Amino acid sequence: MDIGQAETMILEGIVTTIDANDTSKANISPMGPIVEDSLERFTLRPYTSSRTYCNLKAHGEGVFHVTDDVELLARAAVSRVDAPVVPAGVVRGFRLEDACRAHEFRVRSLDDSSERTTIEVEVVHVERIRDFFGFHRARHAVLEAAILATRTAFLPIDDILRQFDELRILVEKTGSEREHRAFAFLTEFVEKERIDKEHGAK
Amino acid sequence: MDIGQAETMILEGIVTTIDANDTSKANISPMGPIVEDSLERFTLRPYTSSRTYCNLKAHGEGVFHVTDDVELLARAAVSRVDAPVVPAGVVRGFRLEDACRAHEFRVRSLDDSSERTTIEVEVVHVERIRDFFGFHRARHAVLEAAILATRTAFLPIDDILRQFDELRILVEKTGSEREHRAFAFLTEFVEKERIDKEHGAK
Repeated sequence: MDIGQAETMILEGIVTTIDANDTSKANISPMGPIVEDSLERFTLRPYTSSRTYCNLKAHGEGVFHVTDDVELLARAAVSRVDAPVVPAGVVRGFRLEDACRAHEFRVRSLDDSSERTTIEVEVVHVERIRDFFGFHRARHAVLEAAILATRTAFLPIDDILRQFDELRILVEKTGSEREHRAFAFLTEFVEKERIDKEHGAK
Repeated sequence: MDIGQAETMILEGIVTTIDANDTSKANISPMGPIVEDSLERFTLRPYTSSRTYCNLKAHGEGVFHVTDDVELLARAAVSRVDAPVVPAGVVRGFRLEDACRAHEFRVRSLDDSSERTTIEVEVVHVERIRDFFGFHRARHAVLEAAILATRTAFLPIDDILRQFDELRILVEKTGSEREHRAFAFLTEFVEKERIDKEHGAK
């Protein structure tokens, strides 16, 4: 698959894969694949340390979800989460019960010669569940906060919290209870990481 | 309509109204109505100086579009734009040919006792045209830049450009040609506003 910079974009969503050790369980991970407009094929780039990589290596099928559920995205970014799933339609795997669209895929090629892998997949089935809400400033602020929260290991925590202060303005101005809750959860997570770092727990 | 903070959100999109002076023309304006999850009714808050207010006062029907077309949103935020439209399905008015969803509405009440009006509308017809792409960091960065660009009259331009520098990182990292183009357009607009301000043209 030839991916030219100009025609491709990063779409943030959630990938479910079958747990390599327990095939009755779904692993739920936020992921930003490189996609083309059509979404017929896309490229995942999980690290070799991730469960998504291990699961796709063991069983080359999964489901990519487009969703506006930032609360799930926020929680899944920093912790293992459970969410209601149903069996996928075509591939062996699971789709989130609540999502906007589910793109069931099969791995076409997997390059794990470097720590950040390149996994090219082909979409074999699409399920439309509900409308994506649309541009919502508070939800995007939560998404940015969730991405920052995954970087506590290598970014100074004070820098992260300074950026949280700016994002919080958007959440308070344009968000509903759901975004407030997700943002509070992420703030608490980062604050806890700071304490752990200060006490040398990490 | 009782709007409690917890259950409502601001959804950024585009409103088309029939031009009060030339009913063959559509006015295209970005707008962030206060909506409920169901989107059966929502509240617009245009200023009395805006065309959308004048048009809705003269003819109480319009169309609210959910769209991921940030290039159109960016241009419409700072200038008058044309875009292909087709006749609306139920109300007298126009819908954008390219949008994700079009919510045709009728005004239920209009309060213009203050400069910022409160216009409550009821959705009478919904047209689904195409999927909303989903969470796209560069597109959201363009949206934030577009909102900043509308504030050159009352925010220090250097502050705006400093925020542009942060947003540009996201656009460059995760955007395609479209987002690069929209961001460059907005940067140019703000730079021009700075020159105008410095030369006392405003």
